[in-house]
Amino acid sequence: AEKKRIAVLPGDGIGPEIVDESVKVIKETGKQFGYDFECSFGMVGGGAIERLKNPLPEETLTLCRNSDAVLLGAVGGPRWDSNPPHLRPEKALLGLRQELGLFANLRPATLFPGLEKSSSLKPEVLEGVDLLVVRELTGGIYFGEKYTEETGEGARATDTLVYYEHEIERIVRRAFRLAKGRRRRITSVDKANVLESSRLWRRVVDRVSKDFPEVRVQHMLVDNCAMQIISRPADFDVIVTENMFGDILSDEAAMLTGSIGMLPSASLGKGPLGLYEPVHGSAPDLAGQGVANPIAAILSSAMMFRHSFHDEEAARAIESAVKKVLSSGARTTDIALAGSLALSTEEFGDRVCEAL
Amino acid sequence: AEKKRIAVLPGDGIGPEIVDESVKVIKETGKQFGYDFECSFGMVGGGAIERLKNPLPEETLTLCRNSDAVLLGAVGGPRWDSNPPHLRPEKALLGLRQELGLFANLRPATLFPGLEKSSSLKPEVLEGVDLLVVRELTGGIYFGEKYTEETGEGARATDTLVYYEHEIERIVRRAFRLAKGRRRRITSVDKANVLESSRLWRRVVDRVSKDFPEVRVQHMLVDNCAMQIISRPADFDVIVTENMFGDILSDEAAMLTGSIGMLPSASLGKGPLGLYEPVHGSAPDLAGQGVANPIAAILSSAMMFRHSFHDEEAARAIESAVKKVLSSGARTTDIALAGSLALSTEEFGDRVCEAL
Ligand SMILES: CC(C)[C@H](C(=O)O)[C@@H](O)C(=O)O
Ligand SMILES: CC(C)[C@H](C(=O)O)[C@@H](O)C(=O)O
Repeated sequence: AEKKRIAVLPGDGIGPEIVDESVKVIKETGKQFGYDFECSFGMVGGGAIERLKNPLPEETLTLCRNSDAVLLGAVGGPRWDSNPPHLRPEKALLGLRQELGLFANLRPATLFPGLEKSSSLKPEVLEGVDLLVVRELTGGIYFGEKYTEETGEGARATDTLVYYEHEIERIVRRAFRLAKGRRRRITSVDKANVLESSRLWRRVVDRVSKDFPEVRVQHMLVDNCAMQIISRPADFDVIVTENMFGDILSDEAAMLTGSIGMLPSASLGKGPLGLYEPVHGSAPDLAGQGVANPIAAILSSAMMFRHSFHDEEAARAIESAVKKVLSSGARTTDIALAGSLALSTEEFGDRVCEAL
Repeated sequence: AEKKRIAVLPGDGIGPEIVDESVKVIKETGKQFGYDFECSFGMVGGGAIERLKNPLPEETLTLCRNSDAVLLGAVGGPRWDSNPPHLRPEKALLGLRQELGLFANLRPATLFPGLEKSSSLKPEVLEGVDLLVVRELTGGIYFGEKYTEETGEGARATDTLVYYEHEIERIVRRAFRLAKGRRRRITSVDKANVLESSRLWRRVVDRVSKDFPEVRVQHMLVDNCAMQIISRPADFDVIVTENMFGDILSDEAAMLTGSIGMLPSASLGKGPLGLYEPVHGSAPDLAGQGVANPIAAILSSAMMFRHSFHDEEAARAIESAVKKVLSSGARTTDIALAGSLALSTEEFGDRVCEAL
């Protein structure tokens, strides 16, 4: 059996509950596909702030560095919302991305059959939606110099958006490779009519595109993209964009399908090490009641098999199992409709394991 | 009669056609409400680049400075898309905003009865949508230092997002005053978990809010807002945010109602001088055919009466006239449905004048 080390970071709120189900599914999949998993748990986010006064303790980072993949639940909660920046749970996410060099964030937005009702978009607009946002994750305005200073005219705050050509090139190449395995269409999103970094971005996309003649490229301004995602979402295949635009557009796209509680994400670097987490947050108000929806966490583990273990077959097995359970009418309470069966977090995880 | 000077900048594409109808409506309204208008035409955008090699000629700026209000059609077209930045039509918009000190961009997104069908959102989600995006327009990353340099590691591009406290304060106060006259709710949108400028923004909002105890304030992260605008748009009243976030979110919000061709905007400064323009672009492919929808331009003139001439009655008269014409079933081709009457740009403008 192939030995793999997984760092498991449950985090805050519903994080631990959904991660438990994901781990269960990972182990079941491992049995069937010949893996020998070693799962080690680490502290991250609010819990780590409470116990170690550090949202991302050094030992957690070391654990991740010595692993083949990282599974994260969610971080954050109102208790830490007014903390100073370095003592906030989100700092852990930013730290993990930067320290592990996870520059490529993959956020698919797909339709789950039977869940059209929970979307605010018309079913005919949603038909055929299957898009993947590829967001740059370790550069741009997130990591540039930032400071506030007192001036003769009052306080002045500065943030800096910086991109090196090579930072743009690696994410763009990743997006092109992903598009090759999909519908071979890329929309590169920028604000080239205003930003210098966007003009560099556009130049790099045009250059890289020459190496992928089979992929059709389109440039789109970010404001226009925010409109097109609503009006004709099915026309998109891969969207590639810089960090902040990706943050906004991927959340917008995730909302399309009305299933934000069900969407997974992967954050990848140069090597096989990746971090896998649900798109949704820690939902502290739902924690501890057994009502959280574990689907996003479970589908994140499917992405783990795909991108860190390069095992497409196992990934598809998990995805099919989730679909099968949903087709049977089973739901967690957040997506339960009148007449459907509402399962607990744990029951839902068990069903997926059975379906595998 | 009250004398007012209006600078009319038709611009490119369908700009001239729709501006003609708007001027017609302004004159008719002026007759009824006792104004004596002097309309002077100026060059802007692509046309000005062709003739004067300058998207915003000095004489146009002077004309605007000597006017009580500016009516703009639209600028831009494929012919100028690959020009260097200083020879691009958009430069005119940025220049007008900065030179005239138009720091507050008001973009209402409202529902037109009978047009729900053209939205991609479900009618039940759209019910009651009536939101106003108040976007900061002369600061932030649009106007900060920007450059690309060669380094030992290849090209590096930098953009700078800068806000002075007083720049934030004036736009936030404007938004609070506007909220007072509406449903008294403000959503201030930022990315305070990442950006230094957002943390300053949040502090200023909290301070200013003390002067408006009757207005309910809520802070929202921009990624979350991009989701909420789709999932529960009717819950928003006034959204106030910085320049780039406002660019993205106002376009997203405009798309909600499926009537981007019908939404007006106002850009205001300290004094009464304001610039009024449709949210939509120059649509060069539709130019010269008499099929353009003049509603956004006409409603922009209603905003002109409201914000530059402080004449709420005249503004409402124009808005009611547009609604009356729509209720009669009249449409321009872009929004015509089977069985409805498709009018030309000019015919539609005439109908509005009759309805006044
Ligand atoms: C929590 C926050 C810093 C983070 C981001 O903006 O990247 C989150 O919104 C995300 O998308 O993972
Ligand atoms: C043309 C462009 C520079 C402009 C902007 O980004 O402000 C436009 O998108 C707008 O919203 O008026």
